[in-house]
Amino acid sequence: MEDIYKEALAIHKKYKGKIKIEPVVPIRNKHDLSLLYTPGVAEASRQIVNDKKKSYDLTWRGRAVAVISDGSAVLGLGNIGPEAALPVMEGKALLLRQFAGVDGVPIVINTQNVSEIIQFVKNITPSFAGINLEDIAAPACFQIEEALQDIGIPVFHDDQHGTAIVVAAALKNAAGVVNKPYSSLRVVVLGAGAAGLATTRMLLGLNCSADTCEIIPGHSAVKDVIVVDKNGALYSGRKDQNIYKQAVSGISNRERLEGSLLNVIKGVDAVIGVSGPNLITQSMIRSMAKDAIVFAMANPIPEIMPSEALKAGAAIVASGRSDFPNQINNALAFPGIFLAVIKGRLTKVTQEMKDAASNTLADLVNNPTPTNIIPDIFYPKLAQHLARAILQVKTSIKYG
Amino acid sequence: MEDIYKEALAIHKKYKGKIKIEPVVPIRNKHDLSLLYTPGVAEASRQIVNDKKKSYDLTWRGRAVAVISDGSAVLGLGNIGPEAALPVMEGKALLLRQFAGVDGVPIVINTQNVSEIIQFVKNITPSFAGINLEDIAAPACFQIEEALQDIGIPVFHDDQHGTAIVVAAALKNAAGVVNKPYSSLRVVVLGAGAAGLATTRMLLGLNCSADTCEIIPGHSAVKDVIVVDKNGALYSGRKDQNIYKQAVSGISNRERLEGSLLNVIKGVDAVIGVSGPNLITQSMIRSMAKDAIVFAMANPIPEIMPSEALKAGAAIVASGRSDFPNQINNALAFPGIFLAVIKGRLTKVTQEMKDAASNTLADLVNNPTPTNIIPDIFYPKLAQHLARAILQVKTSIKYG
Repeated sequence: MEDIYKEALAIHKKYKGKIKIEPVVPIRNKHDLSLLYTPGVAEASRQIVNDKKKSYDLTWRGRAVAVISDGSAVLGLGNIGPEAALPVMEGKALLLRQFAGVDGVPIVINTQNVSEIIQFVKNITPSFAGINLEDIAAPACFQIEEALQDIGIPVFHDDQHGTAIVVAAALKNAAGVVNKPYSSLRVVVLGAGAAGLATTRMLLGLNCSADTCEIIPGHSAVKDVIVVDKNGALYSGRKDQNIYKQAVSGISNRERLEGSLLNVIKGVDAVIGVSGPNLITQSMIRSMAKDAIVFAMANPIPEIMPSEALKAGAAIVASGRSDFPNQINNALAFPGIFLAVIKGRLTKVTQEMKDAASNTLADLVNNPTPTNIIPDIFYPKLAQHLARAILQVKTSIKYG
Repeated sequence: MEDIYKEALAIHKKYKGKIKIEPVVPIRNKHDLSLLYTPGVAEASRQIVNDKKKSYDLTWRGRAVAVISDGSAVLGLGNIGPEAALPVMEGKALLLRQFAGVDGVPIVINTQNVSEIIQFVKNITPSFAGINLEDIAAPACFQIEEALQDIGIPVFHDDQHGTAIVVAAALKNAAGVVNKPYSSLRVVVLGAGAAGLATTRMLLGLNCSADTCEIIPGHSAVKDVIVVDKNGALYSGRKDQNIYKQAVSGISNRERLEGSLLNVIKGVDAVIGVSGPNLITQSMIRSMAKDAIVFAMANPIPEIMPSEALKAGAAIVASGRSDFPNQINNALAFPGIFLAVIKGRLTKVTQEMKDAASNTLADLVNNPTPTNIIPDIFYPKLAQHLARAILQVKTSIKYG
């Protein structure tokens, strides 16, 4: 076992998990008990009977978010089930508290049935101010999230939107560094799961429901994206595509390129890997346009090691790992997103809010360089910066 | 509004709830992040894939309990729905932490459909070490709990068993104070909901499934219980009884008494009210046997005010309120029960464990007197005492 894993296991064993429940106000005597428990608590209940929104003021609901997973697509580990997914969800809960002061509660569930998951999330709604769906496999994740957009609290699948927000921010700064207009970029996205399709939607400025995508007016977009799955490039009419791939392929890949990554990567400005280990070669990078941008984000083993990508002539390289420059990690976005959810009592996280978060994330890097295209996760008050930008959108909706 | 309610509302508003999530181990730098989040967390996940039980050691699951309610029977407030039930569930979570060091998570759910509640609890199982069902109306609560006894973690409906455990403890000591053998007591239980039927089962030493009850060998029991609901005494063959009342009525009320509380309370040794305000009169108490024991536990307004019961000649009076002597409150039991669940990694809370908890609770009162038949909720290490007794049972099962 690598040293990092040995050390990680030891710390998990030592502390038996990463979070705990603490009192906000202690019970010191019978009088306290009569205020915080029976009979006094009845008054808080009576107030909420008359106005359900008061549950945000009189309970922890106003700062509590559930991090829910079925364990079907966890990290690079795949479908490992709910129990094994719990350490990851607890990690996200820890980050929510640490970086945003949000009370995250890890919930892993014993079903991978789409209808049951939808029912479960609907039923848990009154307990929380927002739901972070996590590590749910595509295409189920698209159907689940879409079915839950009008339940009264935001349901945000972080593998999709967190990734898309951070990738778009990093790509904007990378384009600036190599002096190419963002809107001129031709990009290959390698991987057509939750992260791949959501990133493609974000880069192209698409608003998609199950089987249709439309271009969002006013959304800054790259010139083209070619999405590649294990059978090659997605293109309109390719037969083996699920409805979500089909919808995106109707607008992406404008030249209707066919074939493998090796074919379609030729001449593009950027490649974004959200797939698996070692799928990008040095010769592929050499075939890209001048000043190639390479985001190799598979975890823990990237599509190509950063050092090899640089040797092959890439101008800018990013990965998902913390031991290389330019770490592209959802943890840059989701604490700020949920801080906004809580501060603004949002009922949805709209596309415009995601754009605002992404643009703010890009703008926080004062002078982007090849090794500094995205803020560090410890950037002071990062979540607060993002939340402020998102809440400004709330008060000035632009998109239709 | 009474002063106690004003003060309670103010404290709920001020702190915006009663609990929060805290890190067990902080993230100070990128190295910590790589251990507690990606990539290090993957090792904890891999360990659990190979052995699901390790989720108890490597996450907070080993100390986490869900307090789940549908809001259908909350305190004395009735069917007020999930949002309004949340302050009560959060209060229970606070008590679990404060009195037992258990991480309680309040979960209120948006359904009162029995099958959906069962499905919900089954699905949330991998997240927790135990489930405290709370404030779910009878008879649904019986069906729900019974369907969830073999899901791998304990499912404990506190309104039933917490009440039964504490009432039985108090009644044993009360019998001692008035010099009557516990096994000679004839008792009226007023109320045939969750608390009433469960208390009856406990006092008679019954093990019941949906429609049948059998006497548990070796369980100490009173001589007889007459259960009274709003239509009068339950008796074998009464037509308007649900299956749970029917099952109990087959063994309780051995003289097959019929009629109202006024009729059947005559000559009994004890009356236990788990019903509603002002349902017991002074003349009823005068009609009871000498040295009458009166537990008037409706909250916040009892079946009879303690001062009136004493004036009518009751020898021992208890209530659910903290402002009178002899407070009979579930909070005496559930923190210790769930401490045992966590320390012993129990898969069920058996009847023998409930008996052990009840007997220990009774024994903690060294010299019972008319105003001291049950420990104070601030009794030092109360939860630890109960948990130890329960875990001794685990290692020496007696009942068949």
